[in-house]
Amino acid sequence: MGEFDLIAALRERLPAPPPGVLVGSGDDAAVTAAAGSSVVSVDAIVEGVHFRRRWAPPEAIGRKALAAGLSDLAAMGAEPGEAYVALGVPSDLDEPGCLELLAGIEAVAGRYGAALAGGDVSRSGVLFVSVTVVGRLAAGERFVTRGGAGAGELVVLTGELGGAAAGLRLLEGEIEAGLGDEVAAALRSRQLDPRPRLAEGRALAGAGATAMIDLSDGLGADAAHVAAQSEVRLEIDAGQIPLQAGVEQVAAALGVEALELAAGEGEDYELLACLPEGFLERARSAIADLGGSLTVIGNSVPGEGVKLSAPSGRELRVRGYDQLA
Amino acid sequence: MGEFDLIAALRERLPAPPPGVLVGSGDDAAVTAAAGSSVVSVDAIVEGVHFRRRWAPPEAIGRKALAAGLSDLAAMGAEPGEAYVALGVPSDLDEPGCLELLAGIEAVAGRYGAALAGGDVSRSGVLFVSVTVVGRLAAGERFVTRGGAGAGELVVLTGELGGAAAGLRLLEGEIEAGLGDEVAAALRSRQLDPRPRLAEGRALAGAGATAMIDLSDGLGADAAHVAAQSEVRLEIDAGQIPLQAGVEQVAAALGVEALELAAGEGEDYELLACLPEGFLERARSAIADLGGSLTVIGNSVPGEGVKLSAPSGRELRVRGYDQLA
Repeated sequence: MGEFDLIAALRERLPAPPPGVLVGSGDDAAVTAAAGSSVVSVDAIVEGVHFRRRWAPPEAIGRKALAAGLSDLAAMGAEPGEAYVALGVPSDLDEPGCLELLAGIEAVAGRYGAALAGGDVSRSGVLFVSVTVVGRLAAGERFVTRGGAGAGELVVLTGELGGAAAGLRLLEGEIEAGLGDEVAAALRSRQLDPRPRLAEGRALAGAGATAMIDLSDGLGADAAHVAAQSEVRLEIDAGQIPLQAGVEQVAAALGVEALELAAGEGEDYELLACLPEGFLERARSAIADLGGSLTVIGNSVPGEGVKLSAPSGRELRVRGYDQLA
Repeated sequence: MGEFDLIAALRERLPAPPPGVLVGSGDDAAVTAAAGSSVVSVDAIVEGVHFRRRWAPPEAIGRKALAAGLSDLAAMGAEPGEAYVALGVPSDLDEPGCLELLAGIEAVAGRYGAALAGGDVSRSGVLFVSVTVVGRLAAGERFVTRGGAGAGELVVLTGELGGAAAGLRLLEGEIEAGLGDEVAAALRSRQLDPRPRLAEGRALAGAGATAMIDLSDGLGADAAHVAAQSEVRLEIDAGQIPLQAGVEQVAAALGVEALELAAGEGEDYELLACLPEGFLERARSAIADLGGSLTVIGNSVPGEGVKLSAPSGRELRVRGYDQLA
């Protein structure tokens, strides 16, 4: 099947665009009504780097590609608008595979109220999915960058960490961790079907978060981005980090510390934020209303870099942290 | 060098964002002031499919990636706003190569008044550059889709065709066409440094064009898109198509008809538009004011598909045309 036929087949599956999309997929460009501010992020996932087809079916690849993009909107406190997809298709991914991948993107778009408004399909030596997401902020609405934290604030974290890294090890078949089926399935699902914290991001923005980032690269690396851009030092007590069920067992089977897995690897797509202590109860209650949890894991102090202490008192060495701290 | 260092090095080279960009590269997402309508297009170019590093230096790869995206904005009649780049970097493209590629993107952005506002860098088995461009339309400003042409209109074309296809053959070293240095350089440059017709697109939108497309896939395939979406038949006299100097000689050296090269292959990034005859002089004069040319190459009639006639009276067979007509 040619590139044009594939594009036509993909386009047929799309639902009708919502009213704000004046021209959707199928023209030179999409046209959308614009007001307030646009929030735009681009993320690509690449076979052999971010996933392997051995364990990630096409639908999961599509889901993860869009979820990672939407997670960036969550970290700004923005509402999802449109998504655009550039797909690189290798010769061994057939039409049903491409349609499955699109179905995964559509499923995540539908779940979070985003509209797939355009895209591009190319042949490629490796499978890649590059997703651009456009979010919206009403005129004057507050958004949160990585750079707004001051010294003397709390460092807070949504949800639990380590699940995506542990799930990856189970999917790669590296270990036998002796987990129950449900716990193992939840870990694999954390890797294959990540949930961007869009509602939580807006709640934290509304509750007065001063800086925010989504944990895509790992707590160590991502906290270092916030520290660098806010020009503060973040002192994090890794013992406070909530771990997803099963992470301890996977870490034990790998012979590593669970906290190094949880803080050193990314893709949990939880949110790390800074906020003044006086705003904590409001933020906690807003997150609880969404069925989530918010945990204080540290403080911002004058200085630079990140200090990540284990319960033993020693500093954890995690990926991305040494270079950035 | 790690991914973070490369991103930092790339970011350092960026000029300060213009006033409409509230948050530029370096946060979870960019934030831009929005008003009127946004026009968004995504295009990826992939090594081995759209270019080869044997003949395309990194700077040319960057230039072409952004130019192709901006050409989609031209075809809507939109003003360029921001560009976002997802870069897939293979192990044999080093840091200076990546910076050169970025310099190519920046050169084209500067030439057309676009701002590079964000991006993503991944390792990848093949080099790819996925570019998202966001254009602007003031509130109520006219834009042109592929679907607005009626029967009884003229089909018009900006500039000359065939140069990108002929330039590709010279770069691939397939032929010795015996061309003068200047003519050969202009053909190669048409392939390596395409010029999106942004001012021409806005002029045609202002002059009353009813449908418009940029010639990225080739006249045959692209005219078929307009015919399908406008629900008219386009009858094109290929003998009227202006050819770039040297295209005849390259075609002769390849043993093909020059018109098949000019109408069957893409990447010239000229604009094809439909407009009522009464608007022709206004459109021609607007394009002439920009130093360009506008040529009538056919008519729209009731029906469907594209008829592409050679001067001999026979129908040309060109890529993309059979499947789409």
